[in-house]
Amino acid sequence: MNVLVIGANGQVGHQIVNLLHDRKEHSVKALVRKEEQAAELADKGIESVVASLEDSVETLSSAIEGSDAIIFAAGSGGSTGSDKTLLVDLDGAVKTMEAAEKLGVKRYVMVSAHQAHNRENWSEALMPYYAAKHYADKILEQSSLDYTIVRPGGLLNEEGTGHVSIAENLKRGSVSREDVANVIVASLLNENTIRRSFDLISGEDSIENAIASL
Amino acid sequence: MNVLVIGANGQVGHQIVNLLHDRKEHSVKALVRKEEQAAELADKGIESVVASLEDSVETLSSAIEGSDAIIFAAGSGGSTGSDKTLLVDLDGAVKTMEAAEKLGVKRYVMVSAHQAHNRENWSEALMPYYAAKHYADKILEQSSLDYTIVRPGGLLNEEGTGHVSIAENLKRGSVSREDVANVIVASLLNENTIRRSFDLISGEDSIENAIASL
Repeated sequence: MNVLVIGANGQVGHQIVNLLHDRKEHSVKALVRKEEQAAELADKGIESVVASLEDSVETLSSAIEGSDAIIFAAGSGGSTGSDKTLLVDLDGAVKTMEAAEKLGVKRYVMVSAHQAHNRENWSEALMPYYAAKHYADKILEQSSLDYTIVRPGGLLNEEGTGHVSIAENLKRGSVSREDVANVIVASLLNENTIRRSFDLISGEDSIENAIASL
Repeated sequence: MNVLVIGANGQVGHQIVNLLHDRKEHSVKALVRKEEQAAELADKGIESVVASLEDSVETLSSAIEGSDAIIFAAGSGGSTGSDKTLLVDLDGAVKTMEAAEKLGVKRYVMVSAHQAHNRENWSEALMPYYAAKHYADKILEQSSLDYTIVRPGGLLNEEGTGHVSIAENLKRGSVSREDVANVIVASLLNENTIRRSFDLISGEDSIENAIASL
């Protein structure tokens, strides 16, 4: 399977790319925004393609072409304004879905945010971000794609435990980026997660069991 | 018919309220954000309800209850940031759609923006606004509501001519707010516009003929 990781320069995206690259079962390509990011990846033997989520659907289609699956791990980040939240986290994401549909790339795994589907649980400090993720997820759920939407809690830079809790609705919690990356890769490879959306926090179940019991 | 105008204090919303009030065939209620706006309307004999589009779906449901039709003419405006664009123009609008669906209020007329459905025609200076309108319209089109989406060109404060051009795709143009208000009211009252979306600029056809020939 040829897997394209969008937002490969982000903290979670980066770990996903490394995981897939190390496992060698699948071919991984990183979509990054800058040439220097592509050069760094090339040094590690990782293939990449340079494009921006603010580019057109046509440009993004060229970047996506040849992939069998997409992992969307991009985010405009906290240092830009809500204009970028709208144009990257929402519209940018939806453009990649439209490109995937046009190209017939069916599999699409989205890194979302804990409880993005429930307005009452959006973090007061991050309301625009949650709204953008909410609508990107909603459009994905209404698409023809074989989606999985993973909604992790507060992201930590700790080492992963390999043990998590996943369910449609979970109380507020946190989870290491390493565990998130592992859940994303496990979701991609498990058909049980197709057309499913779930919260993810650290927990007691092995990642394998957590996904199998969805 | 009991018609609720959301964003009744805006320039287009204000004209829609006055039109419906003057015609007297239908009962009009204005949804406004501030008590003083409600007091001003009361002085003119116009009923209103105070609520914010940043309120919950439940609060908005209470404000909408008893209405037979909704006209959405609200906008966060150019003086606020893109955070409000996301939370008012997009999420606020969608919350009123959800409330309408829950209450069984079927008719919903949206004031959108020229070519909001075509990314390539979004104004460079207003990209986040267009993105918000685009997704609000998209969610409305996917709802169970009897919607009409009117996408006017550049809004002018000139007197209306009563003559317009409407079609699914029109070249860039402008139109007076008075004509927009008249098209909105005519659309509300004409079943021909149900589940239709169209651009609107000034033109040669009478409003009645333009709508009849949709």
